[in-house]
Amino acid sequence: MVTFNLMQPTSASTDASHWQIRTRPNRHFPFLSRHPWVLASTLAHDTLRPILKSDASDQALQASADDSAQPTTPQPKYGDVVDLLDHDGNWIARGLINPESRLRIRLYVFAKELAIDSQLWSSRIDQAVARRRLMGTANPEGGERLIFSESDLLSGLIVDRYADCLSVQFTGAVLLPFAEHLVQEVQAAAAKHGTPCTKVLVRMDEATVKHEKVSEDDLRQLESLTSIEETDSTVWYQHNGLEMAIDLQDGQKTGGYLDQQNNHAAAAAYMKGRRVLDICTYTGGFALAAARAGASEVVAVDSSERALAIAQRNAERNQLTNVRFEQGDCFHDLKERHQRGEQFDAIILDPPRFAGSRKQTEAALRAYTRLNASAVDLIPPGGILVTCSCSGRVSRSDFLNMLVDVGRKRRRDLVVLESRGPSPDHVFAISCPESDYLKCIVVQVM
Amino acid sequence: MVTFNLMQPTSASTDASHWQIRTRPNRHFPFLSRHPWVLASTLAHDTLRPILKSDASDQALQASADDSAQPTTPQPKYGDVVDLLDHDGNWIARGLINPESRLRIRLYVFAKELAIDSQLWSSRIDQAVARRRLMGTANPEGGERLIFSESDLLSGLIVDRYADCLSVQFTGAVLLPFAEHLVQEVQAAAAKHGTPCTKVLVRMDEATVKHEKVSEDDLRQLESLTSIEETDSTVWYQHNGLEMAIDLQDGQKTGGYLDQQNNHAAAAAYMKGRRVLDICTYTGGFALAAARAGASEVVAVDSSERALAIAQRNAERNQLTNVRFEQGDCFHDLKERHQRGEQFDAIILDPPRFAGSRKQTEAALRAYTRLNASAVDLIPPGGILVTCSCSGRVSRSDFLNMLVDVGRKRRRDLVVLESRGPSPDHVFAISCPESDYLKCIVVQVM
Repeated sequence: MVTFNLMQPTSASTDASHWQIRTRPNRHFPFLSRHPWVLASTLAHDTLRPILKSDASDQALQASADDSAQPTTPQPKYGDVVDLLDHDGNWIARGLINPESRLRIRLYVFAKELAIDSQLWSSRIDQAVARRRLMGTANPEGGERLIFSESDLLSGLIVDRYADCLSVQFTGAVLLPFAEHLVQEVQAAAAKHGTPCTKVLVRMDEATVKHEKVSEDDLRQLESLTSIEETDSTVWYQHNGLEMAIDLQDGQKTGGYLDQQNNHAAAAAYMKGRRVLDICTYTGGFALAAARAGASEVVAVDSSERALAIAQRNAERNQLTNVRFEQGDCFHDLKERHQRGEQFDAIILDPPRFAGSRKQTEAALRAYTRLNASAVDLIPPGGILVTCSCSGRVSRSDFLNMLVDVGRKRRRDLVVLESRGPSPDHVFAISCPESDYLKCIVVQVM
Repeated sequence: MVTFNLMQPTSASTDASHWQIRTRPNRHFPFLSRHPWVLASTLAHDTLRPILKSDASDQALQASADDSAQPTTPQPKYGDVVDLLDHDGNWIARGLINPESRLRIRLYVFAKELAIDSQLWSSRIDQAVARRRLMGTANPEGGERLIFSESDLLSGLIVDRYADCLSVQFTGAVLLPFAEHLVQEVQAAAAKHGTPCTKVLVRMDEATVKHEKVSEDDLRQLESLTSIEETDSTVWYQHNGLEMAIDLQDGQKTGGYLDQQNNHAAAAAYMKGRRVLDICTYTGGFALAAARAGASEVVAVDSSERALAIAQRNAERNQLTNVRFEQGDCFHDLKERHQRGEQFDAIILDPPRFAGSRKQTEAALRAYTRLNASAVDLIPPGGILVTCSCSGRVSRSDFLNMLVDVGRKRRRDLVVLESRGPSPDHVFAISCPESDYLKCIVVQVM
């Protein structure tokens, strides 16, 4: 159920914490379709005005009519509420601003009568966790994404659960003023929906701290919300029936990749009796599922020594002896194996994100082509290629077209057995196509 | 395993049954990427030449050098082998020609040393059926697509299995000269791969007979390959654990929709305790799966009286009493329910193909928008929409963009829970994007 919170001026609005701003001409269309990201380049910055307390909507109109006035001296701080108007002054949406970020405003509501307040957060968090229970109860010992940022209409907040441990990640500074309330509500919602969690790790990664210009005070306060003992540095959880570890050392999470959980299982269904090569195995998600499903042998490669150590520990914990881990760069590794005349009945490619920005898309597609063509070279007719991309900038059709190129270049017929997305706990908002990022294609190479 | 058949002049090649033709300038690129469909508009028709017997490849070169010669009097007949060259005379691919069809050539091989002969068909058919066994054995009482035309590199041949009955459909005239052999090989491959079939229904639909200008003799001969008793008009098979019927009356198949088999089950996982509306239920695939999964009530609508009778019979056979069938047009039905103030916790939309040709794409998208918006009107916040499209001309991103429009128009947030394709027996060839036609999107409407 959606809870409708009628707009109430909060106490904070007395010191200009509610603003309005207009888009540049004809730049408002994505927000009519509820896209939640307002880049700085979209905005007419000289139209920024505070909305004063008492009657917020009247004041907004007044400020909006007063276009010729000098900009007021107070400036917004990250987490302030802002109303987005089109260039003509029509109300479109409400969000939170970070004046220091290129992603200037994150939008949360598209109806004027809805306030951005603790009630909204509570209701959105409850909805997000309830969304993961639409198919029934969850395994308390399992792993799942409980909240996925804009996909759950909570841009800037990602929450994963590993057994009884919550990993809460803030990806935007705008939510920091609400952090304590958000973390409490996440914990409450997890308990309410059948998966109580005693451990909470709260973090923001270094790059975000820097880009979003987070204050040291706020960061300290955020980190103080963590409630995990020093001794808890490894958490075990169930992943497709396997015991898998995440490592909380240094406050950084290593392990997981919950988005691929169903794909690990789906790929494994093809692996029985096959000799399998898993490239970019990370902590062994695909490799161990294949090993358990009866692969004759699994060779799993990653460039990270630390990831391989965790993968090896995972293999031992699950008593899987038909898997061997090797350190190496994915491109070099495939080439060397080709030179040595090696062949595999199945190859899995799950590389890290190749395209972080729109500009990198072309280079990413070239890299995918090279990687996939090198894999095809090692696969005899009838063998299986499982090929993944987690680059949101590379669309599914781009990725499939890349495979068309690979088939043409290598003169092989590629038959797609499955064109898969992420596990259903990784929902995506229709209004934010960027959140539909994961491709996992199962191909038979003829 | 691929069997390589070295090019052997067949006895038929003595009377000019092997041809060559060039594309128009710069129209050969799709075929370098192994697209199997050569439209008449792509070809330089005055370059059609017979390749005479003895040494086929030498003759091809000779004919190719002899461009100024008058076209020879003999004309190809459907099913003749043809080599496709680019405009400069470079060999690209080999296929079968139908001089009467807009889809002039279907390509089967892209290596010059491979012949199109009974060995090729046997090997392709075996590969196709083996492809459905990559994850293990099949349920002999179940339903599955064994051969899917260009997706299995067998353009023009579709084979479904319903328990011990094969439904063999020819969608192109070019395969008719090979029909008897093909049907025998399909039956042999089904038996070899653990699903022997005693009944075989062989057919070509009326529209194809007309468009492809099939001779009455050939049609009669094709139909004579059917080996089903008059009394066998209904075949029962297992579909997600339900007993479902297909009806072979009048030599036409009614029922099935194997492509949606996994989607029927996936959608049902969300339906427990919900009041469900299934629009375009056909023979009840989604409706019955939902009813069995514990929906509180299922209302299933279709415009076809005959389909509803089969659906009703399916419901009775499975002793499902919480499903009610109603006859109606999908658009009108949704509008009328809205006017009556009805609501449903979940709605399933699985309409027939809206876009048959590229020209109809825009109109199809408008129809999808109207249909989906009407469904959203009946869904309270938190409810589920399962929306499908089997129009190959409407891409997945077009279909998702249609949902963006629906969200904008209705001022609702749509959260995509799953973006699904067909069941894995409905493979698709990477070189023929048209064969990736089925979209099934599971959405939570907020």
